[in-house]
Amino acid sequence: MSARPMSAPAVCSLTVAPGATAVTEVSTSRVHEASATVLLGRCRDRVRPALVEAVGHLHPWTGEMAAYALGWADATGKPDPGGSEGKGVRQTLAVLGAEAVGADGAVAVPGAVAVELVHTFSLLHDDIMDADGLRRQRPAVWKAYGTGPGVLAGDALLAQAVTILAEAPGHHTAAAVRHLCRTLNALVSGQAEDLRFEDRPWRGPGAVEPEQYRSMAEHKTGALLGCALALGAILGGAPDGTVTTLDRAGRHLGLAFQAVDDILGIWGDPRVTGKPVHADLRQGKKTFPVLIALAGGGEAAHELAVLLDSVERIDGETAEYAAELVEEAGGRTGTRREARRHLDAAHRTLREASLIHPAAQELDVLFTHLLDRTW
Amino acid sequence: MSARPMSAPAVCSLTVAPGATAVTEVSTSRVHEASATVLLGRCRDRVRPALVEAVGHLHPWTGEMAAYALGWADATGKPDPGGSEGKGVRQTLAVLGAEAVGADGAVAVPGAVAVELVHTFSLLHDDIMDADGLRRQRPAVWKAYGTGPGVLAGDALLAQAVTILAEAPGHHTAAAVRHLCRTLNALVSGQAEDLRFEDRPWRGPGAVEPEQYRSMAEHKTGALLGCALALGAILGGAPDGTVTTLDRAGRHLGLAFQAVDDILGIWGDPRVTGKPVHADLRQGKKTFPVLIALAGGGEAAHELAVLLDSVERIDGETAEYAAELVEEAGGRTGTRREARRHLDAAHRTLREASLIHPAAQELDVLFTHLLDRTW
Repeated sequence: MSARPMSAPAVCSLTVAPGATAVTEVSTSRVHEASATVLLGRCRDRVRPALVEAVGHLHPWTGEMAAYALGWADATGKPDPGGSEGKGVRQTLAVLGAEAVGADGAVAVPGAVAVELVHTFSLLHDDIMDADGLRRQRPAVWKAYGTGPGVLAGDALLAQAVTILAEAPGHHTAAAVRHLCRTLNALVSGQAEDLRFEDRPWRGPGAVEPEQYRSMAEHKTGALLGCALALGAILGGAPDGTVTTLDRAGRHLGLAFQAVDDILGIWGDPRVTGKPVHADLRQGKKTFPVLIALAGGGEAAHELAVLLDSVERIDGETAEYAAELVEEAGGRTGTRREARRHLDAAHRTLREASLIHPAAQELDVLFTHLLDRTW
Repeated sequence: MSARPMSAPAVCSLTVAPGATAVTEVSTSRVHEASATVLLGRCRDRVRPALVEAVGHLHPWTGEMAAYALGWADATGKPDPGGSEGKGVRQTLAVLGAEAVGADGAVAVPGAVAVELVHTFSLLHDDIMDADGLRRQRPAVWKAYGTGPGVLAGDALLAQAVTILAEAPGHHTAAAVRHLCRTLNALVSGQAEDLRFEDRPWRGPGAVEPEQYRSMAEHKTGALLGCALALGAILGGAPDGTVTTLDRAGRHLGLAFQAVDDILGIWGDPRVTGKPVHADLRQGKKTFPVLIALAGGGEAAHELAVLLDSVERIDGETAEYAAELVEEAGGRTGTRREARRHLDAAHRTLREASLIHPAAQELDVLFTHLLDRTW
């Protein structure tokens, strides 16, 4: 691992050779889906007691908000069996990261708790910054409890995340804490980049370039997925080279995931995404499909640029027309290609790491499963 | 140091023997004031390059907000020589903490940077939670940049604080990080306790007891002052016993400081405090003078309770009358006594630690200076 703690996170280095596109067809096999579901459940079960303990040691009020955010309780603090708990992707990656380097998954538990708490922290604070009132079909924490309490609950989760890792037994704790710290800086930078995109023009000088978008997505989404795998490997005693490779695989996974999210943000089925159709376009978000479309040149790209420049606020009809233009200008195809390239790169990077079976196979299954949505 | 990472911060254990009251008269000598000012300047100069570097490595936007919060720049990012920079109490305590255990102050610099960044983070987020629009005679960060950016800047400072410490060289880094983590949890808990006080009644079942207030103040104010000293000592290679003693001295200092702040919050000169007279009463804050007054019994206490219970919002005239009742019921005297007891305890605790001169004397001077306001 490089030791550049205080420097701003490096610009995305996850270039993918142009030839490596459209290789993997995303599997939708039920076998894969079942395996991944079992796998996620197994890892969640393994991490759960420590996660419950970590949340239980928070101040009761921040603990209640944390339990709500994690989908364990409703906004009155009562257990909520219908609460939409996350899949636990990050905790699963941490456990598999350790197993894939030949260690017992148990050593990764403090890392798994840390990344899950950091993920929850970032959702809480990002929802405040983005004024996003809905999270997993329920009011976001700041909507349910108020902005101030939402800020506080996020702070509590972040502090507890670092604490749990810093107090982990074993010889690899310090390295794990340093890795988590670098990730926290990357996360915050990614969010800063994303928020700053809002003020930038759609085209011309100062417009967001696709490469800048990739950097933002790597920081905001990729870094924590990479960190989850890396923490498992670090706590499992893996050499630096393996840690770096796993981190890179997780980052590719994150970039693929973000690309798919961007596709769903425009063309996703509202019944599945829980968001209105063309949501990202209505919000004027500078997502990858739009940026790629604008960068493509051609008539549709030009028309799209004129349209986006001309309207103050994008209504439903304009959004529908904009979505057509993005598609016509190659934004959807280009983003699909981006997702496939990074998913392929993630699988390929895993193979570079000479991992131990069956965890190595399980990681492959999980990677495929995470992109296994209709896009 | 005890290893109770995940448990909620213990209730304040800083009891002071009742006989130990009103011993120290707060010195207002110009000699002391001059020494303390020189001392603070020396330590700020020592820490400054590392602090500037830490802020410089943030994302440019969060870095700009951090520079504004630190009083280095105005809200357009331009250097602001008139900007009201803090005294740098916490960074000074860290440097003196190392020197007082016989180490070079330089070893404490990462700890000094960390506590200064944590302090700035907590001011940023607390101002959002308390809807406090003014900080050091300027708009608070969230007022100048917006709530979302203010949340983000706080997150960036917190992440960077832990990073700087985790990357510090030497053999004591891991212990220092664990201590900082415990402090972060305490800080967040203290803020949670404080926010929750708002919803509690002035009297009867559920009313805030003075001991609960002390616990809140120890977490919210004392923990970070104690941590500053402790980090200096840890990084300076001090044994656990010395670290714990210094931590306790800092906590007593924090409690004394908070008591004085509470006095100034009611009776302070607006030209000095920058807040309207009786500010804390107008805001209905459950501060120590009011709680002590209410707990005292007697006619004034009863009248005060009736008054506070009867009004929805305290206007200027009511606040003035309430302040008189608080004073009559012994709230001002009691809080002065509280401040003096904890300041004495802080000085006494320092002496228990068998520290090295001249840093030990300098700590004494600094402690006295910090309470050297008109109260």
